[in-house]
Amino acid sequence: MQFHTNGFHKGSPEIQKVAKGYEGSQGELSEKLDLLVVGSGPAGLTLAAQLSQYPEIKTRVIERKEEPMYLGQADGINCRSMEMFEAFGFAQKVLKEAYWVNETHFWRPDESGKITRDAKVQDVKDGISYMPHTVLNQGRVHDLFMEVMKNSPTRLEVDYKHSLISVDFDLNDKEYPVVVKVDCAGEERTIKTKYLAGCDGARSIVRHAIGGELKGDRQGQAWGVMDVLVKTDFPDLRYKNIIKSKNGNILLIPREGGQLTRIYVELDRLENVGDSKSITLDRLKEEAKKIFEPYSFEVQETAWWSVYEVGHSVTDKFDDVPVDEVNSRNPHVFIAGDACHTHSAKAGQGMNVSMGDTFNLGWKLISVLTGKSDASLLHTYSLERQIAAQGLIDYDHKWARVMSAPIDDKKINVKDHFIAGGRFTAGLTVKYQTSILTAKAIYQNLANGFVIGERVNSAPVIRLGDAKKIQLLETIKIDTKYRIYIFNDRSNPTEKTSSIYKLCDYLEKDKNSPIVKYTKKGDDIDSVISVYGIYQQNHQELEFENTHSLLRPEVGVYGLKDYEKSYCPDYKNGDNIYDLRGIDKDEGCIIVVRPDQHIANILPLDGYDALEKYFEEIFLDQK
Amino acid sequence: MQFHTNGFHKGSPEIQKVAKGYEGSQGELSEKLDLLVVGSGPAGLTLAAQLSQYPEIKTRVIERKEEPMYLGQADGINCRSMEMFEAFGFAQKVLKEAYWVNETHFWRPDESGKITRDAKVQDVKDGISYMPHTVLNQGRVHDLFMEVMKNSPTRLEVDYKHSLISVDFDLNDKEYPVVVKVDCAGEERTIKTKYLAGCDGARSIVRHAIGGELKGDRQGQAWGVMDVLVKTDFPDLRYKNIIKSKNGNILLIPREGGQLTRIYVELDRLENVGDSKSITLDRLKEEAKKIFEPYSFEVQETAWWSVYEVGHSVTDKFDDVPVDEVNSRNPHVFIAGDACHTHSAKAGQGMNVSMGDTFNLGWKLISVLTGKSDASLLHTYSLERQIAAQGLIDYDHKWARVMSAPIDDKKINVKDHFIAGGRFTAGLTVKYQTSILTAKAIYQNLANGFVIGERVNSAPVIRLGDAKKIQLLETIKIDTKYRIYIFNDRSNPTEKTSSIYKLCDYLEKDKNSPIVKYTKKGDDIDSVISVYGIYQQNHQELEFENTHSLLRPEVGVYGLKDYEKSYCPDYKNGDNIYDLRGIDKDEGCIIVVRPDQHIANILPLDGYDALEKYFEEIFLDQK
Repeated sequence: MQFHTNGFHKGSPEIQKVAKGYEGSQGELSEKLDLLVVGSGPAGLTLAAQLSQYPEIKTRVIERKEEPMYLGQADGINCRSMEMFEAFGFAQKVLKEAYWVNETHFWRPDESGKITRDAKVQDVKDGISYMPHTVLNQGRVHDLFMEVMKNSPTRLEVDYKHSLISVDFDLNDKEYPVVVKVDCAGEERTIKTKYLAGCDGARSIVRHAIGGELKGDRQGQAWGVMDVLVKTDFPDLRYKNIIKSKNGNILLIPREGGQLTRIYVELDRLENVGDSKSITLDRLKEEAKKIFEPYSFEVQETAWWSVYEVGHSVTDKFDDVPVDEVNSRNPHVFIAGDACHTHSAKAGQGMNVSMGDTFNLGWKLISVLTGKSDASLLHTYSLERQIAAQGLIDYDHKWARVMSAPIDDKKINVKDHFIAGGRFTAGLTVKYQTSILTAKAIYQNLANGFVIGERVNSAPVIRLGDAKKIQLLETIKIDTKYRIYIFNDRSNPTEKTSSIYKLCDYLEKDKNSPIVKYTKKGDDIDSVISVYGIYQQNHQELEFENTHSLLRPEVGVYGLKDYEKSYCPDYKNGDNIYDLRGIDKDEGCIIVVRPDQHIANILPLDGYDALEKYFEEIFLDQK
Repeated sequence: MQFHTNGFHKGSPEIQKVAKGYEGSQGELSEKLDLLVVGSGPAGLTLAAQLSQYPEIKTRVIERKEEPMYLGQADGINCRSMEMFEAFGFAQKVLKEAYWVNETHFWRPDESGKITRDAKVQDVKDGISYMPHTVLNQGRVHDLFMEVMKNSPTRLEVDYKHSLISVDFDLNDKEYPVVVKVDCAGEERTIKTKYLAGCDGARSIVRHAIGGELKGDRQGQAWGVMDVLVKTDFPDLRYKNIIKSKNGNILLIPREGGQLTRIYVELDRLENVGDSKSITLDRLKEEAKKIFEPYSFEVQETAWWSVYEVGHSVTDKFDDVPVDEVNSRNPHVFIAGDACHTHSAKAGQGMNVSMGDTFNLGWKLISVLTGKSDASLLHTYSLERQIAAQGLIDYDHKWARVMSAPIDDKKINVKDHFIAGGRFTAGLTVKYQTSILTAKAIYQNLANGFVIGERVNSAPVIRLGDAKKIQLLETIKIDTKYRIYIFNDRSNPTEKTSSIYKLCDYLEKDKNSPIVKYTKKGDDIDSVISVYGIYQQNHQELEFENTHSLLRPEVGVYGLKDYEKSYCPDYKNGDNIYDLRGIDKDEGCIIVVRPDQHIANILPLDGYDALEKYFEEIFLDQK
């Protein structure tokens, strides 16, 4: 954490200095906004928390409900989301408070028809992420995002009791083309906004307004779900369990706090939505009790319960521009989360994919609204996330079939399917296709463990400036910066003849360098693209002050040095990042990473031209 | 973290349910208290944070100053204090926010008289603690303790602008014998209290009132200290540095936040305290600048600075009972922290030893005030901590000589002394002497890595209930419970014939068992002594429900099972606790741990009698 760069900061470093104009309460909804976020679920808050860091952008969040959510709904946080939380600064809080899914157990009926344990499987394979798979009440995840907002320079808060009424377009207004009517706690107001983000759930008004339609299998299997405190002699209450019995199926997810348990009970396929209303909590408990036999199962308290049936569906487009108009106009309205994809809870992906949507959208909107990028960049949101959602729906379909297969179906082994889907369930298979943002995989061989299009698989490194062992991913914050990680070849990075030194010279000074071109005069040299050096030498062998000046830039109001740009492998614990990520030690490489932690490009150390070409498509010349 | 045991808990689990009678503001100081804490520095707050968990104890904290501290003073947090923070629940916050001292560098003058780097030494040796050595503003440490208090059932707050005027004794009042006068923001009030804790600094009024005297070398070497943001080409600004130059000595401690630096500049020995007042900030900067040559050193901002001279001194007794009256009466007044020992800042121990004082005192006061223990237990506070303080003073003397030795003194090698003092500086050498609390080391050989009298050196374990890898020390919270860790022999703990099963049977049911004797009827079985099983089997080999019922007790209002009492070694990562701590695998053993994480006793698995004898001295029979 760096927090004294612009002077001593008293109190908690999480509480940032309030920006000018944001000192008081945020007051009524403004008539003109840069971005209106509709909905304060995981998608809406992930977006709002990013935008809240930018006082120059007028953002507001409206929410139909009367108050924050405390109970129920989603709770699974996959490894990928935990990695994302690192950028928001609250991964450690979740690590402490959440349940960790360490091992998943599989149960089936024995000869007498009672359930018996079939297999134990480590939930997340070693090495695929440095973060665990965790479980935490969605309400608490909301709290953590809202804490980021409250501590931001804009002190952004959710406006509760604010319902979206309608969305229109004023095509004559090039700047604020989106016109929305909002019911503000009873009073109707008209707001004009540059951009609108519909994070307003499966019945999204925003989706409806832009003609989007959820396509797919909307009515599906019905599930009862309850968060319970239970007395039982079932031995695996604190493990994730997939239970198939003669009396039905249960998915058991232990919850944070040591005793709370979430139980999904599979119900018969319902004929229509009305049927689910007739199912009572008592019925759910009874069904569960039968399935758990021969074990006792006595619910002591039910914190929350629900019955729902969700199928698998997705919209064609996540913005307001139809495919055939993509070349002629840019989007102004976006939908994210349940507004554009629904799925079952069984694969535990819902909250994660929703947050992934707006983690993708956030930096793009900010880049456009702060004048760094052209508005055409916004097309990539729908392009990238629609495919990710489609992948989820496909997997979810497959997994639902596995879960609902008859017990005696010898062809379907739940455990094998679970293991095969491990990387998917961990959220690690999202791979953005080749586009202006994702380069063709020409030099993938220089770093086989960093897959172009996928998120950075972090690895430990030792910081040269202070010998602290950190995860490489800790260097990425929600600051909308691109990162260039230069993995040096075997040369000594403190010598002027080394490849990294030459590359840094080019990056720092050449008129065609993306840093020179896209950084505004007077801004810190790392304010658009932040460069890191990773060297093969042991940290005790290198002199910090002899590394290239780009790797120890002078920043902030005082021009203080940044000591956190240079890293060495951890040789002591067999955690050498070069080995772990298959970096070519003779050649080295450049890894270009997007603000959302996805790998944009891999290039050789002299790939100056390709680097220029890549960024030409992303940033506007600031000279 | 367990937080749903008595029902679903919404919002942050750190915020506990407020206790009856504590709903509103805490109001004016009561006329009758159980404990009055004077001073809200590290010693006072460590004590108050523990007491705040007990609504049945009336505790208040008074502070002369007008508001909380934000700047200056102590900042070093050694490994031992980090371990202690684990019990308070905020170690993770410090890990995130603090600077980590990973490596210490040594500098000396080269032939031309300019400084040159002499050596690099890993600051904390591998394996001596699972926590790092960190540095964080004392003000932030205060914040974290006060957060614990604010979130406690009593919502305890510090009363600022409250100065202690006098301390008297009313010997006729057996219950509330201590009479104090307090200036409450201008209004004088008289308070009667059962106990008084003087955490009121080097000029302690409480110490004076009980006739205590700081003995030792009170006037010492003068040091200038400044917290600065500096532009420099000194390469090791983010390492701890001990710099000996021809122009004087500097101790450089990097601070949290990435750029702030604390610099101690050794000044000439001053003739009297008045001299230190004449030293200006500019003088300090100049001295530092000369010492740093040939490196540049330009201070951009000074967050805080001071000049002080502190010698090494300690009082004979940390309570109000003279040695010759120990057998005839019990103490009611205690002093802690700077009130009873002063020392130089050079060994970085000040805040740590002060917190250690009241971490020792807290559980004893609570045990007495809640009727679990006899008041004679309180004699052990002075007994144990006076020796610990004396050890600090002795070390500090030695270290001061090393630091101030002439550069050309060939006999004194700073680096070698630094390495030799590693365990001391990390706070790990405090070893309580044999007493009613610390058994004789008869069975030390059963677990050579757990030293009787020292704190538990934690090691990783896998929790049987959910396969989570944790540190054994995470099982200890500030709940004033004793812990018994049963390291089983090679037998299978799920079999009734195993040693651990028999031991648990005895502990759970025998009329002489300390658990049976000292647990109040109706209280949870682990409310006084909490028992843990550690087994040699891999966690996948054991059935949780077949372990002894004492190791999966039913607790809280619903009688929900506690799934966090059974542990297995981590075989996968070579982190087997039996090997790491030298546990006798054939014999197993019982490790008895005090509420302050110190090891009280080590016994064989059939050492029932010795176990009974040990606890007879600590607890009062509750039958």
